[in-house]
Amino acid sequence: MNFASDNAAPAHPAILEAMARANAGALASYGGDALTARAVEAVRTVFERDCDVLFVATGTAANAIALAALTPAWGAVFCHRHAHVAEDEAGAPEFYTGGAKLLLLDGPHGKIAPDTLRTAAAGYSRGNVHGAQPFAVTITQATESGASWTPAEVGGLCEAARGAGLKVHMDGARFANALAFTGASPADVTWRAGVDVVSFGATKNGALAAEAIVSFDPAVSAVLPHLRKRAGHLVSKHRLLAAQMAAYLDDGLWMRLAAHANAQARSLASALTAAGATLLHPVEANEVFVRAPEALAARLRAAGAAFHPWASDGPDAYRFVASWATTADEVAALAAVARG
Amino acid sequence: MNFASDNAAPAHPAILEAMARANAGALASYGGDALTARAVEAVRTVFERDCDVLFVATGTAANAIALAALTPAWGAVFCHRHAHVAEDEAGAPEFYTGGAKLLLLDGPHGKIAPDTLRTAAAGYSRGNVHGAQPFAVTITQATESGASWTPAEVGGLCEAARGAGLKVHMDGARFANALAFTGASPADVTWRAGVDVVSFGATKNGALAAEAIVSFDPAVSAVLPHLRKRAGHLVSKHRLLAAQMAAYLDDGLWMRLAAHANAQARSLASALTAAGATLLHPVEANEVFVRAPEALAARLRAAGAAFHPWASDGPDAYRFVASWATTADEVAALAAVARG
Amino acid sequence: MNFASDNAAPAHPAILEAMARANAGALASYGGDALTARAVEAVRTVFERDCDVLFVATGTAANAIALAALTPAWGAVFCHRHAHVAEDEAGAPEFYTGGAKLLLLDGPHGKIAPDTLRTAAAGYSRGNVHGAQPFAVTITQATESGASWTPAEVGGLCEAARGAGLKVHMDGARFANALAFTGASPADVTWRAGVDVVSFGATKNGALAAEAIVSFDPAVSAVLPHLRKRAGHLVSKHRLLAAQMAAYLDDGLWMRLAAHANAQARSLASALTAAGATLLHPVEANEVFVRAPEALAARLRAAGAAFHPWASDGPDAYRFVASWATTADEVAALAAVARG
Amino acid sequence: MNFASDNAAPAHPAILEAMARANAGALASYGGDALTARAVEAVRTVFERDCDVLFVATGTAANAIALAALTPAWGAVFCHRHAHVAEDEAGAPEFYTGGAKLLLLDGPHGKIAPDTLRTAAAGYSRGNVHGAQPFAVTITQATESGASWTPAEVGGLCEAARGAGLKVHMDGARFANALAFTGASPADVTWRAGVDVVSFGATKNGALAAEAIVSFDPAVSAVLPHLRKRAGHLVSKHRLLAAQMAAYLDDGLWMRLAAHANAQARSLASALTAAGATLLHPVEANEVFVRAPEALAARLRAAGAAFHPWASDGPDAYRFVASWATTADEVAALAAVARG
Repeated sequence: MNFASDNAAPAHPAILEAMARANAGALASYGGDALTARAVEAVRTVFERDCDVLFVATGTAANAIALAALTPAWGAVFCHRHAHVAEDEAGAPEFYTGGAKLLLLDGPHGKIAPDTLRTAAAGYSRGNVHGAQPFAVTITQATESGASWTPAEVGGLCEAARGAGLKVHMDGARFANALAFTGASPADVTWRAGVDVVSFGATKNGALAAEAIVSFDPAVSAVLPHLRKRAGHLVSKHRLLAAQMAAYLDDGLWMRLAAHANAQARSLASALTAAGATLLHPVEANEVFVRAPEALAARLRAAGAAFHPWASDGPDAYRFVASWATTADEVAALAAVARG
Repeated sequence: MNFASDNAAPAHPAILEAMARANAGALASYGGDALTARAVEAVRTVFERDCDVLFVATGTAANAIALAALTPAWGAVFCHRHAHVAEDEAGAPEFYTGGAKLLLLDGPHGKIAPDTLRTAAAGYSRGNVHGAQPFAVTITQATESGASWTPAEVGGLCEAARGAGLKVHMDGARFANALAFTGASPADVTWRAGVDVVSFGATKNGALAAEAIVSFDPAVSAVLPHLRKRAGHLVSKHRLLAAQMAAYLDDGLWMRLAAHANAQARSLASALTAAGATLLHPVEANEVFVRAPEALAARLRAAGAAFHPWASDGPDAYRFVASWATTADEVAALAAVARG
Repeated sequence: MNFASDNAAPAHPAILEAMARANAGALASYGGDALTARAVEAVRTVFERDCDVLFVATGTAANAIALAALTPAWGAVFCHRHAHVAEDEAGAPEFYTGGAKLLLLDGPHGKIAPDTLRTAAAGYSRGNVHGAQPFAVTITQATESGASWTPAEVGGLCEAARGAGLKVHMDGARFANALAFTGASPADVTWRAGVDVVSFGATKNGALAAEAIVSFDPAVSAVLPHLRKRAGHLVSKHRLLAAQMAAYLDDGLWMRLAAHANAQARSLASALTAAGATLLHPVEANEVFVRAPEALAARLRAAGAAFHPWASDGPDAYRFVASWATTADEVAALAAVARG
Repeated sequence: MNFASDNAAPAHPAILEAMARANAGALASYGGDALTARAVEAVRTVFERDCDVLFVATGTAANAIALAALTPAWGAVFCHRHAHVAEDEAGAPEFYTGGAKLLLLDGPHGKIAPDTLRTAAAGYSRGNVHGAQPFAVTITQATESGASWTPAEVGGLCEAARGAGLKVHMDGARFANALAFTGASPADVTWRAGVDVVSFGATKNGALAAEAIVSFDPAVSAVLPHLRKRAGHLVSKHRLLAAQMAAYLDDGLWMRLAAHANAQARSLASALTAAGATLLHPVEANEVFVRAPEALAARLRAAGAAFHPWASDGPDAYRFVASWATTADEVAALAAVARG
């Protein structure tokens, strides 16, 4: 009954098998191999267009490299107050950009409303040397509160961003889970809606350690390889990442895994609310946020269930995460304990 | 006949199998799992003492994080002119330290002589706000020219470093290959000789992507976890790294792989010199550097052999690298072509 | 009728004359001269203890250098949401620290209450590699809203800071004005209350360009000279800064100038409130913040008065600043226009 | 008999008087004043074209800001091994750029030969993510060895730079002294020869603390104001800098001062060589570099003469600097002592 994090799950067997298959013979290092080329093509196919694709091993690396390509050191990036880049990445965006500021915005369920961005951006004048100079906004798909952006919502935010002269980055650590909920296509919810760069995550959804930086902006793309290598994120035996990503995308595996995780999250939500918890955010991906009576939380903990308190949602708030590996039996076991 | 790089080799099967075995069930993320604890203990056993051990996926990350823990942004680090940190890591040390300088020293076969360090260090006065302020020296084991440091040599360099108030880092990307040549123990060639922090590499010698930062200095250790996370190098599904390292060290696998690679390198050297090439550096690990007649190089290339020209050794210089996966047949095939 | 900023004022004649007197003959450069030594002693006398004193030409430099000495690149600094370091220094703290975060706190009149700091600090756990790691708090004397900290208030804040393991920096851009209001001694409101480093400003209060970084913490002091030089803030013909600071402190000039400016600010406040404006913050230094009817603001502007709208106080808010050079006649002229 | 540095000299009286004249009444701060506009125009007139001009107080600031505008953090800058930016600015270029590398080139008398640059640049391939990515070259006028670049020499270097895709920065700390020697115009030796950005120094030649960053490249210019403010180098009471620069350029004062200093340097050289010293570099500005018998050096020191040993020129090497304030009497006194 481990609902602590989708990072606690192992890799999907098909992905590990692909890594094993890729582990034969000499291959050009640093991504100059045919397997990497195929994985890049697979990402392009998923996004329905030419784009630049760089693989890294962690989501923090993908986000920080992307943001550093979008803003100068003297710039600033808008993000949600509780965004992973702001709260959980130890200042990686500030490190990679060379000290750019994160400007924190509020909004329900981890989303930033277009008008919130417009108002905030209006508070900064381009060229004012004393104040922050925003260059980009980053949003999270699904959000830190488990909500999913629709293409229309992303489009609205991007329109506000364009109006303020900002580029748009999407942290897609749970990109597949969001798509599984909204039914949107990767293209519709990203570049067709105005997104410039995506951190396309696979790790939380069945890979072992594989993320892609996907850039639709050639000027940004030109910088990314240098930022990646300089940060030590260009993996030498690059088949490690390429094999995972190719298998992840092969035959729709990634979307099946996400759909499964989301379904388990919905079951989790039912079980918890039936036991007296109240939902704090809509369940639109693979995470469930609840306020739970202390007795319920204590009962679950006593039974060995792993889950995290969630400070940004206040007292008695908890997060439960389902993954591709979460079984219906595990959720049923939790439900049984929850019922008391 | 791929002698381009030990990074071109796949992972050793035993390491991949360990990754597969580790890929079962939920595990605490970010290194809070028992497998990571065991891998850390394995490293400590190898080094015969308590020490702090952090795993990362690349050697550039290990080096840059270690150097950033050893010097402030306004400091400087001595290294060999052709060190990997200086020539092949895209400025990662400068990035991670926040702009510290690399001060380049010369020396035969990639080594820095103690007197070279003493003389260089004497050119900088501690507290002079105008000039560079050296805080550390980094050496490479085996060197960029394939030479191995003995414990006595490391001790001599460390003594010079201490005299100049410098900490010592060892880039051990080919640490096992150096040990296989010198017969020294890990402890003797590092902390017993005065080294403060080691980048203990496994990737080039049979892992897929696994390096350890090994710190013998508690003040340095206190900073490392923050630097690692902030750089996006704390892998979430940490079993990826732990499983590799544990298998790498299990039952002496790592030293067997290195001994094999070194033996193949010696065979390579024999084959090449027999064919008219001259050795540019002693063959003390798994790399061979030669000056070769153009006809020989052309014949090898035509036969499909992969190897790199080596600019830092001048015209007609080439590097051939053997790995754990290099077979005697491959070397024999090269030898046959070389003979013409 | 220029009430736009105390930076609009010229230097006090006595300070310019001191610069002229100092402009004779050869002097050791970079602060190695006797005049600098005397100016340093003058600062120590004012603070009633030994301390390390470095001169720079701007307040932003003083603040950023001080903060960079107090926190590592992977650290964070608490400050008021509207602090000058947060809103008006173009990201200088982030630049100088190498990307440390500013954590924004709220509080009336630009002050941070001890409990606000305690609560905020409690949200970050020391050693948590994912989240921010606060190392310091910075407060402004007088605050961005023109309020002055008493020794007791500073002591309360410092006690909360110590409890959270934080060092304390004071941005004293208007330090003299605050002292002139509270009657506190420099020592009582800084190191005796627990402050570690002060940016001791002279520019706004009668110098042309002279600030001192005053450190009561030897560990911080050891780093400051390197940070200053590396930032290009070590002035070569150092008599420029030393002469200003010595004259500023000579015979109590600095406190007389501040008392004058404060008195003019009080007159300004009377004139404005008599004309229908309402005070937004207590007038405890040389700044007046009011909400004013549009007609009043328009009348003043039409008469040529210079003053700034003040966005952080909302619509119809304005700031009027008096300086050492503000005359009673100027204030009377403004009052006359204000009365209509 | 102070020949230690041109930084030891005071400001020229005319410059101090201009500062006094400027010290009257309220002026817009941060450079928004008419005096600053006039000083900017004066610089443009000197350079015979429109250009962007920013004033700062130190040469290190001017250089570091300029270089940071010319290269990304992941880039590199070629410079002479003994350039001030490399040896005497405490890593300011690395700090301001965010960790770009300085690539050190050799060449007689502090100059970089075009072919030296060509060869060096050929060692780096654009787009190679592993190695340094050079973006600029910086040269010093006059050089660290007191030699002056002619327009033809600058043009040759710039042509090599263009061929390698590099921008060109000139550190003009002793710009006037170089012009006084070569007779070249400011325009001919900078933008007409291909220079993109100049650090136009006044401090060493009669100002108290005033340097201008002069940019002929609009893309560079767009970034400069943000870099300056973020570094704390935007002086609030900007008349300080503007008054100095306007007076410095007024009626040819700057060139008269430089011519005087150069003439004294030539006299110094005659006196020293007559006494047995040998010139190490041609005397083409206001500095004299000699190898001197120990007896001569001892005699001069005993007589109270101030001058520096010069390590980069080896044992028994010394630098003597003349300034606008050096008198013929001082030189004669030195000559008398030198004769013994």
